[in-house]
Amino acid sequence: MAPPLPVMNLILLFPSDFIPGTNRVVLAGRRHAHVTAVHRAVAGDVLAVGFENGQMGQGVVFRLTGSALEMDVVLTEAPPAKIPVILAVALIRPPVFRRVLQTAAAMGVEAIHVFHACRVEKSFWLSTALKESDVREQVILGLEQARDTILPEVVFHPSFRLFSENVLPVLLKGRTGFVGDPSGGKQDIFLPGPKVLVIGPEGGFIPRELDAFASAGYAAIGLGPRILRVETAVAAFLSRFV
Amino acid sequence: MAPPLPVMNLILLFPSDFIPGTNRVVLAGRRHAHVTAVHRAVAGDVLAVGFENGQMGQGVVFRLTGSALEMDVVLTEAPPAKIPVILAVALIRPPVFRRVLQTAAAMGVEAIHVFHACRVEKSFWLSTALKESDVREQVILGLEQARDTILPEVVFHPSFRLFSENVLPVLLKGRTGFVGDPSGGKQDIFLPGPKVLVIGPEGGFIPRELDAFASAGYAAIGLGPRILRVETAVAAFLSRFV
Repeated sequence: MAPPLPVMNLILLFPSDFIPGTNRVVLAGRRHAHVTAVHRAVAGDVLAVGFENGQMGQGVVFRLTGSALEMDVVLTEAPPAKIPVILAVALIRPPVFRRVLQTAAAMGVEAIHVFHACRVEKSFWLSTALKESDVREQVILGLEQARDTILPEVVFHPSFRLFSENVLPVLLKGRTGFVGDPSGGKQDIFLPGPKVLVIGPEGGFIPRELDAFASAGYAAIGLGPRILRVETAVAAFLSRFV
Repeated sequence: MAPPLPVMNLILLFPSDFIPGTNRVVLAGRRHAHVTAVHRAVAGDVLAVGFENGQMGQGVVFRLTGSALEMDVVLTEAPPAKIPVILAVALIRPPVFRRVLQTAAAMGVEAIHVFHACRVEKSFWLSTALKESDVREQVILGLEQARDTILPEVVFHPSFRLFSENVLPVLLKGRTGFVGDPSGGKQDIFLPGPKVLVIGPEGGFIPRELDAFASAGYAAIGLGPRILRVETAVAAFLSRFV
């Protein structure tokens, strides 16, 4: 069975999609295939669209052929507010990493920082999942799922030392920092205000890493005694900010 | 690359693992392979174990050969409390369904009801993922991840009509019922007490189905304007009960 097309509750549009000087877009490739196969759209149908880092609105199908979808676009609505969270997550194995990018983008984080840690397999850093075009694709899939247009920044930190010494303190400017750890308490995360949320690798942090977070001013927070997979933990913690 | 072995923070033991009349277990297959490859255990090492639907404790490695792991087991500790939630989820495509079973078991739900709905592809009901042995395997993986021993019941309802008319009202005995829907409000779910949480298929419920939930006494609840994938929604909603 071929992998099914992902759900696309909004079609994200980019400057290059537009016929210059008009409000008409011409789409081929993935978005054309999706509208053909899932929406089974015909001329006159109205589809939800959004403009990269801009407004959302409607696209009226002008023509759908075997190779292209043409729509006239009206953008009227602001995208939903981001949740005031920067997510910092240890790199995980590539298929899960892709899903975590989608999930974090869908749930509306402001930025995603991806860092190395002791229990991260070094080979993960060689994966094509880290390529800029691949990262961008996953983020876009998450935004299309959730109906948002604002791409969160994704930054990679292959050195834990440089990340913990130079980046962690800077991220904390104007924010409260938390690191997910089963030993941590539950309540703190409900405090209002912007936050940085750190999620460790499968297998957790080593004590020296937890010390580095504590030194940088990040408090340990937990979700009870159960140890969750990274992608579950990301959704479960972020849900506290929604 | 072969799929990596899932994380196993506890080795779940079953009656047939024990040498009768002793506290010694002999494990082969998946659990033996995991301990060999991941823990790289040697005689004398202590591993976290739990007994199916019973207590948790320690297993001291007596012998690890190329084909079997022998441990002497002491069970002293109660498993973590379940969260007071019955999860009812529409059937989704099989790879995601397997992950949702793991996630729900890991997060500690009391039971999982899986039902048909209009936007569920009928072919999903023919998947091997619904076989009792496959369901049991995913639930066990979730418990081993989270360190729990109590298997939640998993029940299938291939008819929405029978499910909504005969099952939904019965599940609600002594519980508050919620159905996840982007139109719903956010706050109700924080009410204390046992609950039933209903999560729809990718693509959502149709109006007639939402009416059936409302008639049966289930209130719509949301997590804001963003539309989440089923597995993200399950983790995000369940997180409210942790």
